[in-house]
Amino acid sequence: MKSDVEISQAARMEPIVKIADKLGINEDQIEQYGHYKAKINFKPTDQGKDGKLILVTSINPTAAGEGKTTVTIGLGDAFTELGKKVALALREPSLGPVMGMKGGATGGGYAQVIPMDDINLHFTGDFDALTEAHNTLAALIDNHIQHGNQLNIDPRQITWKRVLDVNDRELRQVVIGLGGRTSGVPRQDGFDITVASELMAILCLSTSLSDLKERIGKMLIGYTYDRQPVLVSNLKVQGALTLLLKDAIKPNLVQTIEHTPAFIHGGPFANIAHGCNSILATKAALHFGDYAITEAGFGSDLGAEKFMDIVSPRLKKTPDCVVVVATVRALKLNGGADKKHLNEENLDALKRGIVNLKRHVEGMQQYGKPVVVAINKFVSDSDNEIKYLADYVANNLEVPGEVITSWADGGKGAVNLAKQVITACDKPAQFQELFAPDAPLTDKMQAIVSKIYGGNDIELSRKAQNALKRIEKMGYDKLPICMAKTQYSFTDDAKSLGAPENFSIHVSDLQLKLGAGFIVALTGKILTMPGLPSHPAALDMDIDENGRITGLF
Amino acid sequence: MKSDVEISQAARMEPIVKIADKLGINEDQIEQYGHYKAKINFKPTDQGKDGKLILVTSINPTAAGEGKTTVTIGLGDAFTELGKKVALALREPSLGPVMGMKGGATGGGYAQVIPMDDINLHFTGDFDALTEAHNTLAALIDNHIQHGNQLNIDPRQITWKRVLDVNDRELRQVVIGLGGRTSGVPRQDGFDITVASELMAILCLSTSLSDLKERIGKMLIGYTYDRQPVLVSNLKVQGALTLLLKDAIKPNLVQTIEHTPAFIHGGPFANIAHGCNSILATKAALHFGDYAITEAGFGSDLGAEKFMDIVSPRLKKTPDCVVVVATVRALKLNGGADKKHLNEENLDALKRGIVNLKRHVEGMQQYGKPVVVAINKFVSDSDNEIKYLADYVANNLEVPGEVITSWADGGKGAVNLAKQVITACDKPAQFQELFAPDAPLTDKMQAIVSKIYGGNDIELSRKAQNALKRIEKMGYDKLPICMAKTQYSFTDDAKSLGAPENFSIHVSDLQLKLGAGFIVALTGKILTMPGLPSHPAALDMDIDENGRITGLF
Repeated sequence: MKSDVEISQAARMEPIVKIADKLGINEDQIEQYGHYKAKINFKPTDQGKDGKLILVTSINPTAAGEGKTTVTIGLGDAFTELGKKVALALREPSLGPVMGMKGGATGGGYAQVIPMDDINLHFTGDFDALTEAHNTLAALIDNHIQHGNQLNIDPRQITWKRVLDVNDRELRQVVIGLGGRTSGVPRQDGFDITVASELMAILCLSTSLSDLKERIGKMLIGYTYDRQPVLVSNLKVQGALTLLLKDAIKPNLVQTIEHTPAFIHGGPFANIAHGCNSILATKAALHFGDYAITEAGFGSDLGAEKFMDIVSPRLKKTPDCVVVVATVRALKLNGGADKKHLNEENLDALKRGIVNLKRHVEGMQQYGKPVVVAINKFVSDSDNEIKYLADYVANNLEVPGEVITSWADGGKGAVNLAKQVITACDKPAQFQELFAPDAPLTDKMQAIVSKIYGGNDIELSRKAQNALKRIEKMGYDKLPICMAKTQYSFTDDAKSLGAPENFSIHVSDLQLKLGAGFIVALTGKILTMPGLPSHPAALDMDIDENGRITGLF
Repeated sequence: MKSDVEISQAARMEPIVKIADKLGINEDQIEQYGHYKAKINFKPTDQGKDGKLILVTSINPTAAGEGKTTVTIGLGDAFTELGKKVALALREPSLGPVMGMKGGATGGGYAQVIPMDDINLHFTGDFDALTEAHNTLAALIDNHIQHGNQLNIDPRQITWKRVLDVNDRELRQVVIGLGGRTSGVPRQDGFDITVASELMAILCLSTSLSDLKERIGKMLIGYTYDRQPVLVSNLKVQGALTLLLKDAIKPNLVQTIEHTPAFIHGGPFANIAHGCNSILATKAALHFGDYAITEAGFGSDLGAEKFMDIVSPRLKKTPDCVVVVATVRALKLNGGADKKHLNEENLDALKRGIVNLKRHVEGMQQYGKPVVVAINKFVSDSDNEIKYLADYVANNLEVPGEVITSWADGGKGAVNLAKQVITACDKPAQFQELFAPDAPLTDKMQAIVSKIYGGNDIELSRKAQNALKRIEKMGYDKLPICMAKTQYSFTDDAKSLGAPENFSIHVSDLQLKLGAGFIVALTGKILTMPGLPSHPAALDMDIDENGRITGLF
């Protein structure tokens, strides 16, 4: 069996100018990065003719993921197969995890975006630019304190950490500024992974350089000794930080193995941020394609909810169809099967776990748009399991469901799914908001918990209550809410699988993300700097003199 | 007066494919990064027909530099003006200082490489890739310890620090790994600026992917509890790190304002490393041009000495002519003038300081190749000062000297200099080694001190003596030496200006850089992580909606 990187390196790519031409993007609008990658100079207008929008989401995943990206890419290739003008809008992979675990974010098998090695490594430098901009701001904050601290910043209350696109647990908690008067002010600090940076969220929500600059200026970086907020605009460095992101803001264009155009741009965390590719990339896909297919991170409780409630209002467009990806493996896990034995047939576990799919589908139906289930077939799934799942969808969920085999078969493996999606997109449907945009924060959280998670209520810790009071006092209590929660459960307990009932969501803190324009509600423990496993993927990677790569998935 | 970035943004650029075509590089060999930057797929062969090599160096500089890059670029444009097929080979700017001090590394005025904004910011991502690879290795080291420490690495003896391309004094000395068992092992650490990474030195000395991988494998990252060296190859991650640098190893091609081709690639520190652009870039310039013009960092005592003694043997080519850049300003500083009053005429200081130029010229003459002096004229220099300096060169140094005004006049301002350089290149001359390649370390140091610095001898601290013994025991005592010394003085005391006599160089430590293949002799205090000034350049930078940049020099 060929590895993903072998399939990618063996694929015949078309020059990126030709892929752009398919979409009607001319050479003046693109900046090539090599022959097969490009950045697009694209200024969206709200008046543009927009294609149909398809959002791909999933059930609660296993640690290895459900192949949501593979489904998204396969679906795109199926649209191409059917002669449709389609464009994908996807997130960029984070390099940190690439060096750690096997399994990338560029699809798999014959449903990949390529060149997968470049996309998984530095790509066009967007994440590097974000890392640089983020850490430049951190240095400017400490430098301000070093040179007299005119703004009266309290070193104990700086909320702006540093970042690296490396899985490096050693940097989670550090003490910096040691070494005496000329080497800074000693204080506690920590590093997050780059995708957790508020700058990443901002880049993905901005629609122009000016919008980006304005958002950067609004970012809260800490408090003064007398507890007043300090913003980037107080430091007067929003211009320099925007300058550092002048190319990163431009969407990237690549192709799938079957030459379907794909905009790959941005990739914020789906728990502490909104988990979707950039608005500019989705707008580009909508503008240039008759169909735009995008995905949201983790399960529908995290990524898709945020797409609907945070992204859509800024995109000024709601999905015409929602695809919920389900796998036999994840449903068995949700039904109590041991994660080491997911390759073995286990109909009992599948039957117990299938309630997870039901709740995800019903959650998405709250928004009023058509839902289609994609059953992503793994080679280890038995025919009995697949049949049970397909029958369940047909008989119990009252939504269309199709088995997809794009990992093995590329676009051909998703043609039936594509046909269902096209039909769904043509259905007249009215988007229904989960809550009013100006509802109080607690009402918004309550609506998400009861309508999407299936829980009862929210409980705020003392710290969260105090934070809420401060937020109300500052006048930010009408901002959107971004729930930071485990991706493994509808609850805030990663071990509570399936479709739990009668639970509360415990909010430990509320964090103001004024640049991104939302408030993060922290539930449980959210790790923003991953570690590497005992046998990191890096140990198996190699490249020879001719550029042939091994071990990269 | 227009700023550098205004001149750059107003310049008419030719498509990079056209610049490549001038040199006979065809489209298959280049990977475009936008319309005006490219990476070159170039495999050097030792048998290739090589052009003439011109090395640009300088006297001991002021903190603002002597415009050595401006001279190099102006000289290149003068060669173009004279109808010669010429290519430049230059270092990439480091982004950290760009955010700090005004004054870039892309030339100035009408002698610039462009687009200067892109080159000064992320360019083609080489430094970002180095940062990522460096920190990935750091994470892999700590991860190895976290997961059982099979190699028995002593956390107190890890020599591999972390890096960022940010001027961030706050990270010079840190404690990492706090937060308990799941967040690493607490230990002291520190961050350097990316250009100080041994990976940077290695990238610039490698001639192929395999060479790069082999060097990376040899890097020393620390010692075991029983004081045995630990190499990257012991961790088995040289393949992954090489993979992360697969594009960074390719030289970048841009153009000057007057469309002279310029390879810009790599940029190691000229004190703790060798301070020259990549060997691959210089080889490309030699291969494609009839004349290749390159520069070495800081004054001739640092950069040029290392070019001759470390780079040339690996390049298998020595310079055909050495250009020593002198300025009235730096000579006045060397003659005791106050650095705040360098804009005012001060012939006395100039007369006192001119011995600095004399020693640099005589040092370079040791190598047996022709030397030419370039007097880089600043607008603040008086006619009397320029005349005194020109007369001194003509009457006392017995080498050609020409005034150059390329900052104001571009290539035209360096035509006379170019003619002198062409004449010099045609002179028959035999390269003379400063010392035998297999001379003992102390003999090599002694030769550099007496023949180049003009000092008496070297004194090794107790620590350096012990290090020397260990190095001899390990069998590395025949490696080249890389002197880490202040750039402001021939001595190891930054305040000892002019041409000091009767001094010793104090070596405080010897560091093994097994990947780069040299031993660093530390003298005085070498800062490997700069800080930002009280008013960082970042505060004045901006970009508007149309991409117009201000404040970037």
